[in-house]
Amino acid sequence: MKIGFIGTGIMGNAMAGHLLDAGHEIAVYNRTKSKAQNLIDRGAKWCESPGECSRDRDVIITIVGYPKDVEEVYLGANGILENAREGSFVVDMTTSSPELAQRIFNEARNRKIHALDAPVTGGDTGAKNASLTILVGGDESDFNQLKPIFEILGKNIVYEGSAGAGQKTKAANQIAIAGALAGACEAFVFAKKNGLDVQKVFDAISTGSAASTQMSGIVKRGLDGNFDPGFMVKHLAKDLRIASESEIDLPIFKLVLEELTKLEQDGIGSEGTQALLKFYKF
Amino acid sequence: MKIGFIGTGIMGNAMAGHLLDAGHEIAVYNRTKSKAQNLIDRGAKWCESPGECSRDRDVIITIVGYPKDVEEVYLGANGILENAREGSFVVDMTTSSPELAQRIFNEARNRKIHALDAPVTGGDTGAKNASLTILVGGDESDFNQLKPIFEILGKNIVYEGSAGAGQKTKAANQIAIAGALAGACEAFVFAKKNGLDVQKVFDAISTGSAASTQMSGIVKRGLDGNFDPGFMVKHLAKDLRIASESEIDLPIFKLVLEELTKLEQDGIGSEGTQALLKFYKF
Repeated sequence: MKIGFIGTGIMGNAMAGHLLDAGHEIAVYNRTKSKAQNLIDRGAKWCESPGECSRDRDVIITIVGYPKDVEEVYLGANGILENAREGSFVVDMTTSSPELAQRIFNEARNRKIHALDAPVTGGDTGAKNASLTILVGGDESDFNQLKPIFEILGKNIVYEGSAGAGQKTKAANQIAIAGALAGACEAFVFAKKNGLDVQKVFDAISTGSAASTQMSGIVKRGLDGNFDPGFMVKHLAKDLRIASESEIDLPIFKLVLEELTKLEQDGIGSEGTQALLKFYKF
Repeated sequence: MKIGFIGTGIMGNAMAGHLLDAGHEIAVYNRTKSKAQNLIDRGAKWCESPGECSRDRDVIITIVGYPKDVEEVYLGANGILENAREGSFVVDMTTSSPELAQRIFNEARNRKIHALDAPVTGGDTGAKNASLTILVGGDESDFNQLKPIFEILGKNIVYEGSAGAGQKTKAANQIAIAGALAGACEAFVFAKKNGLDVQKVFDAISTGSAASTQMSGIVKRGLDGNFDPGFMVKHLAKDLRIASESEIDLPIFKLVLEELTKLEQDGIGSEGTQALLKFYKF
């Protein structure tokens, strides 16, 4: 298929590479061209704008930064929807807002374009290994048609419901992460401030009832003194801000969001989420 | 060895059974005798008091309800420390307070008795399958001497440090549970109130970055409409109250404790911890 791919950061670059490997004809656009150079070298066609990257394509995939970026590439002047042809598919894989996904879906439908929201979990490792979980909202028939594409990028591919349902599911995932992350951080802060050996505590509690991907995969790095980002504080904060736009009163994740916001204000928003340990002066 | 075993509830009963299977000579005491009957039928000697159960024993193991019960059986009139012989070992496997563990340790040492605090994680399943995690505080030489006994009861056996360190580690474990449990509950409440199919959301988020034992092992039961206890609301609340006696400011688990306390006040303290879903009117 002729695929336009917009957003070749760490995630998008790996994903576009898999589509190339699978034999698809790829056009790419990214704000910073150098981040797409490896794909261009492998035969992807460079485009100067999202609009150019959308013309005469069967599928246009986006994975950009923030909801405002999604809005701009889809709905802005010379954006995707102005340029995509009738009958084409547009798939936003950015973690973005459910309401924006619904707006894009409606606007696309007016233009006879099929829109899906399909955010992912699994991070850079999942993108590299093509083992992402993909959470899809939109029309189920559109989902079924694009499933072979999703299967190139991920392993656990779930149709969640109508437009926005993929984004809502991603928000639920980030809410669960917030609790598990904070619980693990508080546990090791409690241990350290009580004079325990945090490594021995990790050995004891990381495999049983308190076990979580956040504890073993993320917080453990912080215990070892490594605050490099697997997933940045500012990105989890962004995702939780999207979730907090919902009216539903959920105090735990909102409190975690306040803590992450404080870390951003302290200038460590680009550290990994294990930096939540630092909120408690670990 | 001659072992006194005090507290034959769901956990203790299974544990005492393993010690019998391993060929040890067991004396048992429990407030409600009927709950020890199966052990008596298998050859355990019934005792009428904790004191009687402690006399002339090599090791006395306790797993009772609340810290006040621990205090009573160890330090009360005709209790364990009054009756245990010099050179014997006493091991409290109840989840109890670090300060009380230290008091018992000091009082025992004055009487030339070796005391360990050794709370467990893994629940009734872990007790039945002898796969408990055992978190041990006290003198390391005492730990080493009793390790063969612990190995009959559990799989992951970790020496955490001086008296009280086992209890502090268990508190850390419960703090991590609180966050993971609340995160998973909030995630599915968010999903349901946003009109998603919670089973499809579970399929999508339970194996990746949001994965936790709490989500898959506990909260899933609530999603299926099952609020039977694996671990009761009132017991997690008890454990978090012990943890909250520490001065360290950890807001997330304390907020979860407030929510669990509300559930107790609502009369559902004996439901499983997945009933935290009900706090949010799931």
